[in-house]
Formats: sequence, structure tokens, C-alpha cells
Amino acid sequence: MIYTITLNPAIDRLIKVKGTLTKKRTNRAHQVEYDLGGKGLHVSNVLTKFNMENKALGYIGETNRPLMESILAKKNICHHLLVEDGASTRECIVVMDDTNAGSLMITENGFHVSKENHSKLIDFLHQFLTEKDIVVIAGSMPPNYTIAQLLEIINTIKNKKCFIACDLSGEALAAVVDMGINFIKPNQYEVEVLFQNNQTTLIQKIKELAIKIDYVVVSLGKDGSYVAHKDNLYQVTSPTVKERNDTGAGDVFVGSFIAQFVQGKDLKTIMKYATGCSASKVTKHNSTDFDIKEAESYFNRISIKKLGSDEDVVS
Amino acid sequence: MIYTITLNPAIDRLIKVKGTLTKKRTNRAHQVEYDLGGKGLHVSNVLTKFNMENKALGYIGETNRPLMESILAKKNICHHLLVEDGASTRECIVVMDDTNAGSLMITENGFHVSKENHSKLIDFLHQFLTEKDIVVIAGSMPPNYTIAQLLEIINTIKNKKCFIACDLSGEALAAVVDMGINFIKPNQYEVEVLFQNNQTTLIQKIKELAIKIDYVVVSLGKDGSYVAHKDNLYQVTSPTVKERNDTGAGDVFVGSFIAQFVQGKDLKTIMKYATGCSASKVTKHNSTDFDIKEAESYFNRISIKKLGSDEDVVS
Repeated sequence: MIYTITLNPAIDRLIKVKGTLTKKRTNRAHQVEYDLGGKGLHVSNVLTKFNMENKALGYIGETNRPLMESILAKKNICHHLLVEDGASTRECIVVMDDTNAGSLMITENGFHVSKENHSKLIDFLHQFLTEKDIVVIAGSMPPNYTIAQLLEIINTIKNKKCFIACDLSGEALAAVVDMGINFIKPNQYEVEVLFQNNQTTLIQKIKELAIKIDYVVVSLGKDGSYVAHKDNLYQVTSPTVKERNDTGAGDVFVGSFIAQFVQGKDLKTIMKYATGCSASKVTKHNSTDFDIKEAESYFNRISIKKLGSDEDVVS
Repeated sequence: MIYTITLNPAIDRLIKVKGTLTKKRTNRAHQVEYDLGGKGLHVSNVLTKFNMENKALGYIGETNRPLMESILAKKNICHHLLVEDGASTRECIVVMDDTNAGSLMITENGFHVSKENHSKLIDFLHQFLTEKDIVVIAGSMPPNYTIAQLLEIINTIKNKKCFIACDLSGEALAAVVDMGINFIKPNQYEVEVLFQNNQTTLIQKIKELAIKIDYVVVSLGKDGSYVAHKDNLYQVTSPTVKERNDTGAGDVFVGSFIAQFVQGKDLKTIMKYATGCSASKVTKHNSTDFDIKEAESYFNRISIKKLGSDEDVVS
């Protein structure tokens, strides 16, 4: 089984207003849509699209729980989310108007998670994880969550000998890297923060990370990614596509990577699906849509170059 | 019993962001508060503050029902709201940043109300209303609600011989004025729309309305109001106060008016409470707070002038 853990879930509220969004007057919304927010839940959505059995774990707020559950139900996402009483799942509000000045994005912080719910999550992991399982932890932490709590989760999973993939940043990323896990996907900025901007090159930093971490993916946005595994480092380019919205592209990358990995595919195939699906996501308006067939049509425009060897181009 | 009816309820989401609200980047909310929205619910809140027994009727969405119910519970509002499955109570989003450029307000349209729920509301009115009751219908209509449905509600209440107060606008106001009800509170613009901008003066229009409607209040914002009752027309001035937020001031006026009216107070007292409480509301940041003691302290700064008679100043 693949489990995803979203500690700080979100609901995306996409609001369209006519004319120009203006302060000091009432702007009437003529369309409102809801979408999944929270990186771990996005990964669950990707796995579900790949028909990979998975279960979303984490927390949700009680006061807008039916809304969140209706969004999860529409996407057919299997979940066991612990409910925090009196709390609302945070929203990421995106307001679009008729101008081309870009959308207005407002993100809320999320609710405080009780010690009881944290313990319940730990208990669940204790009880149900087996060493065949894969666990993906992704996204920000709730405002009151401590690194110690995160590490308790990681420790519990490590004791069960599961494969652990993390899409975290800042202190949380540093803490899980220290512990040694199986997969990380920072972007270039997050890697630099991790090394406190020391003077080695990005490549050297990735190689250092790859000593402890089985799969190190460093996303470079439109420029593709570096993927390090064992002693090998690959540079993967992304196909040029018409960009509409790159929110969620990283989650599609992680979900597609895990979906291929769990099927035992070779690293080249894994990288092609992850890169192709992520590029497909970028062409969509919302933060969760992507198309697997479209992704496959990009495969011949994705190059995978093994760095530091004679056999430069492997595809 | 006093009943309020809110056909298109709302939740106010007040979001504070640091710095300057900017498109094309993520604006992080550092504070989020919820407040009651929907004029009828606001009137219920005012009545409850005056310790007047009342019940809020209308519709709410299922998907954020616990949030709405927690807001109602905090304000101790008694309600019998019909739940629309799969629907969200609309939000009025108010975003404030650190600049003095005013807040950004985005209002959603509301959900479609099913025929079943409309019938349930009619059945409730049939079953429970008595001729001693007062019914206040206030606010906008749901997107799919028809004037015929509104008139069915009005007819049902009229058949029970209740006192009917309406704070409506546009077509809905025109329709209820045609039927003849007991109280309306349009602003000057809404009166002009009602008379399709014909050339008579505002005073003449108010007098014409007062032939059919027992109490005609025309709000003039900071300039106070005109109040017509039977053959008498009064000009009421509002005390000058430090304005922070005038949203909800009209609902406080209506609620205070009804709270005094139901206690059998004389029209002068009714007008003083309505005007004073409304002025107190304007000094508060959110859309529901006001202070009755503060309102009473304004009484000697409220003048009530009877128009078209020798005894010009009655207070």
C-alpha cells in the first residue's frame, strides 16, 4: 500500500470576477470552484489517476469537513483523515479577473493540530504499516507542529522499514535529510538553504545528498530536473509546453514517480512519466489536472543525460 | 415570536494579510475571522442582543454547515435553517492589508435552492405562524429563486395576518410593495429604481409608498433617514461618529426598529434606537457589533423633525 501524509491540508477556492478586481467596492464572483489543496493530497490524486491503491492520511478541520470530503469523493481518493474539532481546513484563495495582470493568491496558515490527533496518527502508523509499504509525506506543517513531532512520524515509519518519500522544505527538509530517508524532491533554492549557501556547486550538493538518500530529485522548473540515484546523476530536460498554471506540477512529478517506482519500472521510465505528467499538468488551468496519454506523447521530447560518463545520452 | 427569513445567507471571511496585497505572488494570511453574513441573520443577531425571542429561518449549505452553525451558536442565534445538500453557504470575502487603500471585497452568488426546500419553508410558515408574529425578510435572493416563489412566501405570511417587514431591493422590493406589506427600508437609490426615475421628488415618492405600507423608512446613510407612518413624515438625523465600517448598519437599523416596535414603544423611541444603534455599528470594525448603551448615549444628538407641520422639531 502507498500512504500519503498531509499534515496541513488545504482547499483551493478559485473565484472568477468580472471586470477588474478593485478595492473599496464589492467585486461580484460569477464563478466559484473548489479543488484539492495540500501536496500530500495532490500526490494521492495522482496515484489514484494511475490506478495505484493508496490511502491519504493526515488531518482535516471539522467545520468545513463535508466540503473537503465532497472534493475527495469527486476525485475518488481513499482517505483516513483525522478530524480536528472546531477547526477549519485552510483555504488557498485564488481570484482571477478579466485583466491579464495575473491572479491574486491568498493562502491561510492552517489550524493547530491537537496532541491527541498527532498520537492517533502515530498509532495508525504503528498498527497498519508493513515493510512493503511506501509513505509519502508532503507539504507544509501546521502552525503549531514541531520538528520533534515530524521526526516521531518519520521514526515510526523507519521502524517499520517502509520506503519514505518526503516533499518538504526548510527546517523540516533538513531534519528528515539528517535522519536519512529514501526520496526527496527539493528545488534549487531549497537545496541552497539546506547547505546554507556554501560555495560548492549544485551538482556537488546533490551528490552529497545522494550518499544518504536513495533518490534525490532537484526540480528546476521549466529546465527539468537533476535525478541522483546511487552513484549516478542524470539531467532530465522537460518538453516545452504552453504554460497555464504551474501550481501542483511538483506534486504530479512526485506522484507519477512513485506510481512508476512501485510497479518496479526502470529509472528511465520513471523519470519520463514524472517529467511528462508534470509538463502536462502545467498546461492545465487548475492545480490537479494532468493527462497520462498527453504525458506519453511528450516522451520523445524528454532527454535524459547521464552526467560524468562517456555514454552521455541514454535517451 | 419574531421570525427572520434569509433566503441567501452568507459567511463573512475577514482575512488580514501583511504588507501590500499583490497579484501574481502568494499573499499569506496572518489572521482569519468568520462572521455572520446575510441581512436576515444580521437582524436575528440584533434582536438577540435586545433579548427579543426570535428564530432565523431560511436556507444553508451542507458542505460548510458546521462552520455556519458554529458562528450562529457563538452569537446565540436560535434558528431553523433548511439544509441544501451538496451546496456551500456563500462567502463574502474581505481582505485587508497594511495599506490604507481600503479593503478588497469579493461576494459570491449563493447556491441554488431546491423546490423541496422552498416547499419545506412554506410548510413551516403554514404550520407555525400566528397573527401575533412578526416576520422580517431581508437580503438578496438565491440565484435560481423566482419572484413567484418570494410572493408565495409573502402570501403565506399575509394569510396568517402577521406583520411583514422586508429589506429587499430591485424586482423583489417592487413585487412586495405591490402586494402591500407593513415595513420597508429602501435607500434613496432603491426608491428611485422603484419609481423608474420619474420626476416627482423623493418626499412625494415616500408619501406614495406610505399609502400602502405602514412604515416606510428611507435610509440616507450618514444623513439619517426619512420615516413615514400613516400621514406623518419625519426626517431623522444621525449623530456624527467615527466611521470604521458601515457594512451591516442597515440591518442593525431594521433589527433595532423591530425590537422596539414589538415592545409597543412610541415611534420616537423606535426611531432613536434604530438610528443610535445603527450609528454605533458604524464605529465597529466588523459587520455585526454594536452597543446599545453607546446608542443611548447618542440620543440627544439625534433630531427628529416632523415635516410639513408647524411643530417642526419633535425632539
